[in-house]
Amino acid sequence: MAIAGAISQLAGLLGDRLVTSGAVLDQHGQNETYYPLTPPDAVGFPETTEEISAILKICNAETCPVVPYGAASSLEGQHLCTSGGISLDMGRMSNILKINAEDLNVVVQPGITRIRLNEELRATGLFFPIDPGADASIGGMAATRASGTTAVRYGTMRENILALEAVMADGTIIRTGSHARKSSTGYDLTHLLIGSEGTLGIITEVTLRLQGIPEAIKAATCRFASVEDAVNCVILTIQSGLPMARIELLDEMMVRGFNKYSGAGLPEEPHLFLEFHGTQAGVEEQSATFEEIAADYGAKGWETADTTEARNALWAMRHKSHYASAALGAGGHIWPTDVCVPISRLAEAVLQAQRDAVRLGLTSTIVGHVGDGNFHAGLSVDPNDPDEMARAEEFTSALAETALRLGGTVSGEHGVGLGKQKFMTAEHGPALAYMRAIKAGFDPSNILNPGKMLPAAN
Amino acid sequence: MAIAGAISQLAGLLGDRLVTSGAVLDQHGQNETYYPLTPPDAVGFPETTEEISAILKICNAETCPVVPYGAASSLEGQHLCTSGGISLDMGRMSNILKINAEDLNVVVQPGITRIRLNEELRATGLFFPIDPGADASIGGMAATRASGTTAVRYGTMRENILALEAVMADGTIIRTGSHARKSSTGYDLTHLLIGSEGTLGIITEVTLRLQGIPEAIKAATCRFASVEDAVNCVILTIQSGLPMARIELLDEMMVRGFNKYSGAGLPEEPHLFLEFHGTQAGVEEQSATFEEIAADYGAKGWETADTTEARNALWAMRHKSHYASAALGAGGHIWPTDVCVPISRLAEAVLQAQRDAVRLGLTSTIVGHVGDGNFHAGLSVDPNDPDEMARAEEFTSALAETALRLGGTVSGEHGVGLGKQKFMTAEHGPALAYMRAIKAGFDPSNILNPGKMLPAAN
Repeated sequence: MAIAGAISQLAGLLGDRLVTSGAVLDQHGQNETYYPLTPPDAVGFPETTEEISAILKICNAETCPVVPYGAASSLEGQHLCTSGGISLDMGRMSNILKINAEDLNVVVQPGITRIRLNEELRATGLFFPIDPGADASIGGMAATRASGTTAVRYGTMRENILALEAVMADGTIIRTGSHARKSSTGYDLTHLLIGSEGTLGIITEVTLRLQGIPEAIKAATCRFASVEDAVNCVILTIQSGLPMARIELLDEMMVRGFNKYSGAGLPEEPHLFLEFHGTQAGVEEQSATFEEIAADYGAKGWETADTTEARNALWAMRHKSHYASAALGAGGHIWPTDVCVPISRLAEAVLQAQRDAVRLGLTSTIVGHVGDGNFHAGLSVDPNDPDEMARAEEFTSALAETALRLGGTVSGEHGVGLGKQKFMTAEHGPALAYMRAIKAGFDPSNILNPGKMLPAAN
Repeated sequence: MAIAGAISQLAGLLGDRLVTSGAVLDQHGQNETYYPLTPPDAVGFPETTEEISAILKICNAETCPVVPYGAASSLEGQHLCTSGGISLDMGRMSNILKINAEDLNVVVQPGITRIRLNEELRATGLFFPIDPGADASIGGMAATRASGTTAVRYGTMRENILALEAVMADGTIIRTGSHARKSSTGYDLTHLLIGSEGTLGIITEVTLRLQGIPEAIKAATCRFASVEDAVNCVILTIQSGLPMARIELLDEMMVRGFNKYSGAGLPEEPHLFLEFHGTQAGVEEQSATFEEIAADYGAKGWETADTTEARNALWAMRHKSHYASAALGAGGHIWPTDVCVPISRLAEAVLQAQRDAVRLGLTSTIVGHVGDGNFHAGLSVDPNDPDEMARAEEFTSALAETALRLGGTVSGEHGVGLGKQKFMTAEHGPALAYMRAIKAGFDPSNILNPGKMLPAAN
């Protein structure tokens, strides 16, 4: 009833930019992982912030759920309309509004994807460093506090957003932050919205910090006799303060996946994929220091990717880990999960994850942004095999418990969405009540991505 | 009545650690700047988080204001009990709880000051980089989102806190964040508490990121014919991506202040004070690149401080800018104010501030962390001269308006406290209502530092 009432008013507002055809609903109900198809009741294609404000006024009055939709690359079902309602497709709000090269920032609409943004920035000599692998939308990356391969050097979305515009549940348009690099005035609403997964407001504009394209970039790979050696090499590298731009672990199963999916032809041993950024001299100095550390852990097969093409090929392969993991099993689907632990506990966490996968009879890869203590387990599953799915769920719970036991978090970058809600009490304890207080204050009718992130109160 | 009732119960709880003697009240009612003496009704000296929880339960039931007190170095009256009530002196909670050297972090109680923290860390080869000048307490630095001279390289408190423990208004103890370097789970309560100036919760434990002490450190100074040349040199340096560890501007008045207060014997022209961190080769490379840029703006008098002693002397002098500014005028007091603007607008903002001081017949220094676009005006004032105080207030308002006009913020690091509330609507607009919603949800009886940060709603 409420949803139907909202749809009829939204049709008046948006005309043919409110769509209820089955194909479009199905497209917006899909996801990259194991969650079932969850079509919304309608898809809206807004073109301006003011239009989103009008949409939210209608939906708030009608108590109709609204879920923002970017590139649909979220991995915990964040963009799925599990309570029905409106999927708000930001694809028509994907412009660069202003490149402030002299201030090293850019103002974009939320629908732009990171690859297109960097293409458009190329002529300026600047780039936006955050790279989660998928060609995610900037709005989605902000909403899920995304990070990825370069976060070890440049930080996550948390450190790279200066300011936001957002539309709140009742249609109020707010601006948070400023174009200054820091501020001490007022509560940090920018960071509150980053990672809020669309539950507190719809992000309609993002001001991103940019970096100068490094004078020199060097990528390299090497391999180790054991995951433990590889991880211990990472730990010492980070502890040494070496400013790694990328330092990615691939366990032997992940390498096997790349060999199968991409024909990588790599020896099936644990690998590190590396990148160094700096001046020419700085990069050589960093690389030499790393080689010394790695030698202590028995690194072999040191290979460098010196050209842009070779580097791009390396990272393109790395970014297909999701599909390469899926290719290892018969089910063809991937249950991706991630955790993040203090760097000193990384070896313990990775080895425990490998043991848990064996114990549960699961095919799992380990790949990760290990310089941050963040890694992924990619479980190859068949969603139609309830026993395997139950074991995958048991694995995920065991991994989450491991992360919490070691002082970490149940997700370093995928977020909570649907799948990690059951760990929120264990991770946040009494703080969860204060998250609920914020949600209740900002969205009293619970129309913004309802049923996500915060588990229902007992 | 309510305050008296709370004090009598707190006396039962704390015994002789609840103090109402005039000297102690006066000590806790003082401040470094122009706000009048504002003694609290009582001062509590808690020793544990659980004790603070018990204190807040009493004060919440009695609606008695509670204001945390660290090193009293705040510059906008944040620690003053302007509504009466209890000053909560954190001096007995100033221990290092755990140094996790292998994870590059440390867990401390809020009362420890940054200088003592770094003394205790020295043997580990690690340091805590944030340096606001004053020997502030870590809890106070977290609560005011402090930064200072090294923020251009290492970020502010915002980027350097991994986790917090806090006691909320009703006595609930929460933990935010984790010891992992990043997380995507839940609303970012860590960043919400950072910079909340004691209005949302009392910070009782802070996990800080640490840095390795650089292999090489080099400080240097140079001077310019005009502030505009100096600032343009800074702008190009930052735009070039040079990883400056410190880059501080002193205008000619500030230099005069140092000559008068510290016998610095410097030519009375605008100066930059610089520091480079890195490997030996990296520091020399950075320094040479900076010298090339500076030469284009007519830099002269290049001098390096190569020894630890020379460097310490340089920064010790710099950190006395507050007193050196005060020494320039007859009144002997300083009205310190700060703003932060996008780096491209820095010259415009600094020159406007200098013109405004002249127009209003005020003695003002300009000194700042210009690599961030952040600078201070230090007005020498006599609090007993109402006309001069009115002109100082006019200057502060004009500077805030300049910062907002240029896309910046009315405070880069001092915070809001009492003095900057009048600009909150202009800076935050409709977002202010969401800050108020958070305050109302977290502290419905308004006992936590009431009357600070958020201006009264109309």
